[in-house]
Amino acid sequence: MRTRADAAALDEADPLRRHREQFAIADGGPIYLDGNSLGRLPHASAERLRTVVEEEWGRGLVRSWSHWVELPVSVGDRIGAEIVGAGPGQLVVADSTTVNLYKAAAAALAARQDRRLVVSDAGNFPTDRYVLEGLCRNLGYELRAIRADPFDGIQPDDVVAATAAGDPALVVLSHVDYRSAAVADLPAITEAAHRAGALILWDLSHSAGAVPVELDASGADLAVGCTYKYLNAGPGAPAFVYVRAERQAELRQPVWGWFGQREQFAMGPAYDPVTGIGSWLSGTPSILGLVAVATGVESVAAAGVGRLREKSIALTELMVELIDDGLASYGATLASPRDPARRGGHVAVRHPEAWRICQALVDRFGIIPDFRPPDLIRLGPAPLYTGFVEVWDAIDGLREALATKAWTAYPAEPGRVT
Amino acid sequence: MRTRADAAALDEADPLRRHREQFAIADGGPIYLDGNSLGRLPHASAERLRTVVEEEWGRGLVRSWSHWVELPVSVGDRIGAEIVGAGPGQLVVADSTTVNLYKAAAAALAARQDRRLVVSDAGNFPTDRYVLEGLCRNLGYELRAIRADPFDGIQPDDVVAATAAGDPALVVLSHVDYRSAAVADLPAITEAAHRAGALILWDLSHSAGAVPVELDASGADLAVGCTYKYLNAGPGAPAFVYVRAERQAELRQPVWGWFGQREQFAMGPAYDPVTGIGSWLSGTPSILGLVAVATGVESVAAAGVGRLREKSIALTELMVELIDDGLASYGATLASPRDPARRGGHVAVRHPEAWRICQALVDRFGIIPDFRPPDLIRLGPAPLYTGFVEVWDAIDGLREALATKAWTAYPAEPGRVT
Repeated sequence: MRTRADAAALDEADPLRRHREQFAIADGGPIYLDGNSLGRLPHASAERLRTVVEEEWGRGLVRSWSHWVELPVSVGDRIGAEIVGAGPGQLVVADSTTVNLYKAAAAALAARQDRRLVVSDAGNFPTDRYVLEGLCRNLGYELRAIRADPFDGIQPDDVVAATAAGDPALVVLSHVDYRSAAVADLPAITEAAHRAGALILWDLSHSAGAVPVELDASGADLAVGCTYKYLNAGPGAPAFVYVRAERQAELRQPVWGWFGQREQFAMGPAYDPVTGIGSWLSGTPSILGLVAVATGVESVAAAGVGRLREKSIALTELMVELIDDGLASYGATLASPRDPARRGGHVAVRHPEAWRICQALVDRFGIIPDFRPPDLIRLGPAPLYTGFVEVWDAIDGLREALATKAWTAYPAEPGRVT
Repeated sequence: MRTRADAAALDEADPLRRHREQFAIADGGPIYLDGNSLGRLPHASAERLRTVVEEEWGRGLVRSWSHWVELPVSVGDRIGAEIVGAGPGQLVVADSTTVNLYKAAAAALAARQDRRLVVSDAGNFPTDRYVLEGLCRNLGYELRAIRADPFDGIQPDDVVAATAAGDPALVVLSHVDYRSAAVADLPAITEAAHRAGALILWDLSHSAGAVPVELDASGADLAVGCTYKYLNAGPGAPAFVYVRAERQAELRQPVWGWFGQREQFAMGPAYDPVTGIGSWLSGTPSILGLVAVATGVESVAAAGVGRLREKSIALTELMVELIDDGLASYGATLASPRDPARRGGHVAVRHPEAWRICQALVDRFGIIPDFRPPDLIRLGPAPLYTGFVEVWDAIDGLREALATKAWTAYPAEPGRVT
């Protein structure tokens, strides 16, 4: 079993270690293992937000729109280039992940009206399922949910089987499972969806900034993703949507608005959207959100997604080893894939008292995990700012919480933990 | 003709004068007459945003969601109580005005599927027209546009005439015209729409914070509005949507998402929205935007919408008088209603070279108006922070720009001015 000194040696040798200094991290603060839910604050974002608020809004006033207006596309291009393997002109940043999912799925259904089947995953993230449930109910589509083993995740054969009968219009899946971190084989599943005649829409919320994605190379049609997790853009920052260049003429999003209009300030009588990805914009985007996405993406790009993935695997490998060695005797077991190539940026631990254990970790052990019902403790060591000793200490704290049954002091009724 | 000294006396007597101190206003900065497009920065918002970024996000991290999650409804309730005359549980703040318009109009059409006509205004704000054009095209509704005199605005009789033939499902109008500031008779038009069997959706973007609105008393079914104009919430801050309590069971918005779910973090298999206005939330709302809406609304509430309206009328009356007296001989004429009861918070001036004149005002005269095509100079003296001497100086500057033909130095091709 590896010791704390072994973990310290890994920190010493970590080529990304200095990147931690870019973040606001209080001395003596908690061990934060929830960067996969809300990433930490980059110093650069705090500074940039001050400037945007006090200078650009406060002094520049409406004149600042002359450069703000470019942000949804320019920040989208940066995410494409640095994070998800997409050439320019295919991503915009605006609206929430949910609204982007709605727009993307609605556009796909409108382009495939002769096909009345949508395929998704019964274990997909709630908002993805609810958006599809609403669209399918309102538009009269069948919604077919794959029931994969949640801890292996969706396999290409699952998609082949689910799309074999009926005429699928659209397949909607998450690249990284929000509970188990199982990574779906994005290129193979994209190919399977296309062979069945369907378009595919990927949710990259748990991969963007943690697991390399090659959207252009994979042939994916549509994708959305969150910026406030591994991209560290802050609470409720706007999401991105990707529409493959070759699909843009065919796919038209349903929320027509003035930010997609060709001559926005001519304010002409009829909707005449720009050619290209800009037509996916609807209303006025959040400028504070967008500038925080920009600085967040820069901090990830400075480390490089490939190197972050290497460190992420090393962190989760250590975590898995310590869980196996130290927690099994307390009934806490790994609930994520063992193969690091098939595991995303976090690790899930299963225990019937997961909710109470999470409360004890936050309250008594200075460790912030998160809880996913019914019985998962989710541990996300974001590689940009999490060290190996932190992982060691967190699993040791969890071991102690289990050994001492510290969690018995906490209520059993699950409450709100994001 | 009133003199600058008269204007100074009005400032001296202004009971709201001290409210200007709440805003970041640089000494020697421009005269800002575009608060109806992007309101000024309240000091309280700059401070609150710093705290939210550095403390709540930076230190509180994901734990801060325990109070952030209440903001869309609690800030909505404040807007209801202080700004638009609505009791609690009928407004939420999230998403853009455009997305909220889409949700509200789609919900209304889904509730009135036996009626296939939508009535709006050919001169409505562009994003309103585009949203309706998209919905009507995609869902197979007739979109009938009233062609009112844009400078008188929509009259109740226009709505009676437009809804007389066919079965109208929905009427969508702006309360205050974005060009002329003409105020529509909201209660009378609401009644006319209801008599025709239609639901009505009001866009309050140019009234919220400037012109009193009584949503509950008027019988209005749905409303949306912008927070970054007279509510001073900053660029791209989230918008509000109002759904009358008695209509909430009948009206279901189409973008089903996890923030509307009854037990959000149970993450259950099927969409089971909360009862009430919370079901109008979709994805994760912008927290930076929401806190700026909260402080912006507080600054308006501290003055009171009624008193702001009194001052606004005094400001625009002075403006109209100075325009009539000083600008007519240069071919610049009033393009807003003369009756202050029928005029909102801004004043439009028509001149064939409006675009070039606006450029000259910004560049040479330190006056920020905005341009609305084809020939309007829009002057918005937001009453919270604009003084009478500023109005006097602005019209004097405009007079000088016209007298000296300073605008001839600027290009004639309209560009981007929000």
